[in-house]
Amino acid sequence: MAGKQLLSMPLRDLADGLRSRDMTAESLVEASIEASKDCDNRAYISWRPEPALELARAADQVRAAGGSTGPLMGIPVSVKDMFGVSGFPTYAGCARALPKSWEAEGPLVRALQSQLAPVVGKTHCVEFAFGGLGTNAHWPTPQNPWCKNEHRVPGGSSSGAGVSLINGTAALALGTDTAGSVRVPAAMTGVAGLKTTGGRWSTRGIVPLSSTLDTPGLLARRVEDLAFAFEALDPMLARRGAGIPASPDLSHLTLGVPDGFFWENCSPGIAETVEASLKQLEAAGARLVKFELSGLATVHSMFLKGGVAAPELAALIREELPDYRSSLDPDVAARLHKAEGLPAWEYIQRRTLIDRLSAQAAEELSTVDALLTPTVTLTPPTVSSLADPDAYVAANMQVLRNTAVANYLGLCGLSLPVGFDSMGLPVGLQLLMGPWREERLLAVGQAVERCLGTGPDIMGLAPAD
Amino acid sequence: MAGKQLLSMPLRDLADGLRSRDMTAESLVEASIEASKDCDNRAYISWRPEPALELARAADQVRAAGGSTGPLMGIPVSVKDMFGVSGFPTYAGCARALPKSWEAEGPLVRALQSQLAPVVGKTHCVEFAFGGLGTNAHWPTPQNPWCKNEHRVPGGSSSGAGVSLINGTAALALGTDTAGSVRVPAAMTGVAGLKTTGGRWSTRGIVPLSSTLDTPGLLARRVEDLAFAFEALDPMLARRGAGIPASPDLSHLTLGVPDGFFWENCSPGIAETVEASLKQLEAAGARLVKFELSGLATVHSMFLKGGVAAPELAALIREELPDYRSSLDPDVAARLHKAEGLPAWEYIQRRTLIDRLSAQAAEELSTVDALLTPTVTLTPPTVSSLADPDAYVAANMQVLRNTAVANYLGLCGLSLPVGFDSMGLPVGLQLLMGPWREERLLAVGQAVERCLGTGPDIMGLAPAD
Repeated sequence: MAGKQLLSMPLRDLADGLRSRDMTAESLVEASIEASKDCDNRAYISWRPEPALELARAADQVRAAGGSTGPLMGIPVSVKDMFGVSGFPTYAGCARALPKSWEAEGPLVRALQSQLAPVVGKTHCVEFAFGGLGTNAHWPTPQNPWCKNEHRVPGGSSSGAGVSLINGTAALALGTDTAGSVRVPAAMTGVAGLKTTGGRWSTRGIVPLSSTLDTPGLLARRVEDLAFAFEALDPMLARRGAGIPASPDLSHLTLGVPDGFFWENCSPGIAETVEASLKQLEAAGARLVKFELSGLATVHSMFLKGGVAAPELAALIREELPDYRSSLDPDVAARLHKAEGLPAWEYIQRRTLIDRLSAQAAEELSTVDALLTPTVTLTPPTVSSLADPDAYVAANMQVLRNTAVANYLGLCGLSLPVGFDSMGLPVGLQLLMGPWREERLLAVGQAVERCLGTGPDIMGLAPAD
Repeated sequence: MAGKQLLSMPLRDLADGLRSRDMTAESLVEASIEASKDCDNRAYISWRPEPALELARAADQVRAAGGSTGPLMGIPVSVKDMFGVSGFPTYAGCARALPKSWEAEGPLVRALQSQLAPVVGKTHCVEFAFGGLGTNAHWPTPQNPWCKNEHRVPGGSSSGAGVSLINGTAALALGTDTAGSVRVPAAMTGVAGLKTTGGRWSTRGIVPLSSTLDTPGLLARRVEDLAFAFEALDPMLARRGAGIPASPDLSHLTLGVPDGFFWENCSPGIAETVEASLKQLEAAGARLVKFELSGLATVHSMFLKGGVAAPELAALIREELPDYRSSLDPDVAARLHKAEGLPAWEYIQRRTLIDRLSAQAAEELSTVDALLTPTVTLTPPTVSSLADPDAYVAANMQVLRNTAVANYLGLCGLSLPVGFDSMGLPVGLQLLMGPWREERLLAVGQAVERCLGTGPDIMGLAPAD
C-alpha cells in the first residue's frame, strides 16, 4: 500500500507495523506528503510536513534504540486550526493569525506530541468554529471528496479534518465539537467521529468558541480507530490503568430509536440508509426500542435562538480579539451581531436550563445502551447554494440539528459512516450516550461497526472518480 | 445550665451528654423554647418549636432503644429561610411565601433530618439573600444582640442565623454565603461561620441567589463546633471515612497577612483588634508573612459593578417567580433593576475572568497555610442610618468587601470572633484558603481559636445588659 491506502489502514495495524519495524514513521509521513500531491490540499490552512518528517525520523531512531513513547508514536495526525500547536500559527479560520499566545499547546496536543505523533498540518475550519457547513470567507472551503463535479461542503466546523483522512494525508484528525463540529464533517466525509463529554478532555490550548459547550474530539476512518486513539489519549483511562471494555454482543444491547425530530426533512436517501442500518442491527439481535428525550424540543428552540455559543463567542472576541471584529466572515459576523444584544439574564436562564435538562437527559438515557439517529439530515449542499445569508442560516441550523442537542444535553456521542444518500454522498449514523460514558460508547460503537461494516468496507478506501 | 447557657455549650459536649443520656433532646428543645421567651425572637421568620419538640422526644426514644442516627442527633438547629424544609413555608425573605415546590429539602437539610436534629425554626434573611447588612423591608430586621440601646444590624444575609445562636434558641445554624452572607453575620454577632467551597456542598433545595456563587455554610459558637458539624454533614468525608485532621501546632504554620485592601476604612477598633490577634498568634509561634492575592482588585471592581449574582438573581426571578418582582424590597429591586440591562457578553466575560482568577488564586494560596484578614471592616450600622438608598448601597458594599473576594476567587473561608470594636460590637477574624481545603481550614482554625480563645471565652456567653 502507498499514499491514500497506507494511512487508511487501521491505527492498530499501523502501530503494530511500526512496533515490529515492518514500517517506519518516516514512510508514513512520506505517504502523507505523496497523498498531498494528488489533491488540492485545501484541507489544510497550514500544511507543514517537513518538521513532521524530521520528527518521524527521530521517532524511528527512538524505536531502533528500543524506545517507545506510546500507542500513537509515529502516526501522522492532522490538527484542527482551533488548537494551539507550537511551530504553527493559529488562525482559528480568521483572515490573519491570532496573537502568539494562541499557539501554546493544551493537554491533548501535548499528549500527541509526547507520544511522538507527527502533526503534518493544521486543518481548515470555519472561522472560530462557528458554523456547521465548513465554509469560510477567508480560506477556500475544502471540497467534499465524494462529489467530484460540484463544490459541495465537507461539513464543519472541522471542515479539513474529515477530508485530511479521505485524501490520505493523516491517519487521525483532532477536531472540536460545540454543536456537531466533529460529527457533522465525519458524517459528510464518510469517516467516524467522536464527541467527548464536556469536561472529560481539557479545552486548554484551544481557541474557545463556547466557554461552556466546547469539547475536543477525534475523527478517524473507523470506530475501532477512534477507540484506539481514545485509549491512547484519555487521561482518565491512563490514571485508572484501564482501557475500552470488550465490545458487547449485539443481542445484549437495547438501542433507543427516537421518532420525529431527528428524522425531519431528511434529504433523499438519508433516512432510508439509516433505517436499513437499524434493521440490520435488529436482524443481528439488537433490541430496538422507541425512545424520546424529553428536553429535546426545549434545547432545540434555544439553539435556534443562538443558544449560548453565540454570546460566549461575542464575549471572547470583545475581550481578547477586538481587532478581529471588523474582518469577520459575514456569515459569522451576522450571527455574532445578533447575539451581542442578548441580555445577561436570558443567557443565565439558558445556562440554568441546560444544566437542569442535562441532568434529566443523563437519567433518561440510563435506560438504554445508546440512542441511534441520523447524524445529519441534509446532503452536503453546494457552496454556491449558501451564498444567500438566509439560505446559509437555514442550512446551518439543519446540519447541526441532530448533533447540537447532544452538546446542549451534556452527552457524548459518535458518528459512523453507514452508506450513501441518493446524491451519492456519505450518510452517518449517530450514537448518543449519557455523560462520561465514552468507554462504553466506543465499545458499543465497535459492536455496531462490526455488524454494519467499517467505513472503508462500506464506502471504499477512496471516492470513485 | 439552662436557656441561653445550655445551647451555647460546645456541640461535642451536647452530643456526649445526649449519648450518655445525661441530657435529653427534649430538654435541649425546651431550653430553646425558654430562651425564645427572653427575646423578641425576630431572628426567625418561621418559629415552630412544637414539631421540633416532638421530634426530640422521638429521638430520645430512639436513644433509649439503643439507636443512634449520627453526631447531630437531638441538637437544635436553626435553618436560614433560603433552605426548603418540609413543614415550613419558604419565604426567602419575601413578603409572601414562595410556591410549595421551594419547600423541598436538598441534601444538606436531609442530612440534618436523617440525623434527627430538630429544626426549631427558619431564620430571618435579606430578601433572596441579596444584601450583606441583614435588613429586610418585609420582615423586621433582628437587632444586633450586642447593642441594647440602638437598633444596629446583625449582618446578613443570614441575619437571623447568628442571632439564633446568641439568643440561645439554636446550637447550630445553617446559612448560605454568596458574597459573605455567613461570615458577615457571624462576625457581627460574635460567632464563628464557615463558607464552603462552591460545589463542595450541594445547593439543591436552596432558593438560588447566584447560580454560580452560592455556597451553603454553618454558623456556631466556636470553630470547634463548626468542625464537629462539618464532620457530621460533609458527604466527602463520609465517603472517605475520614474526619478533620488534628490541629497543627501554631509554630508549624505560615499565615499570610495582606496589606492595604482588607484594612481600608476600618471602623474604630476593628483593625486594632484584629492586629492584636495577629500579634498573639505570632507570639505563640506562627510565622506571619506579607501576602497579596493578585486577582483582588479585579474581582472587587467586578463585584462593585454588580458581579454575577445580580444578573443571576434577575434571571431566576424572571423565569421562576415573575409575580414577586412588583413587591421586592426597594433596596433589592434597585440593584436588580440595574442588573437587568447587563448584556450577556459582559456577564460571560465576568464568569470567564472568575474562572481564570480562581485558578490563579488557588495556586497563589498554596504557598501559605491561610490568609488572615478582618472579616468585616464596618461596625454594624444602625438601621436608621441605612434609610437613604445611597447610604445603603455604600454600607452594603463595605460590609461585603473582605468576604466577597473569597466567593469570586473560589475560596473557602471562616470567621471567628476575636474581640470588640470601639463601639463594643464584635470583631471577626477571617481565615481564607484555596478551594476544597475545608478540613485543613477547620484544623488551622481550631489551632487559631485555641490560641486566641473561643467565642464564649472572649465575648462571654451573652451580651452584657
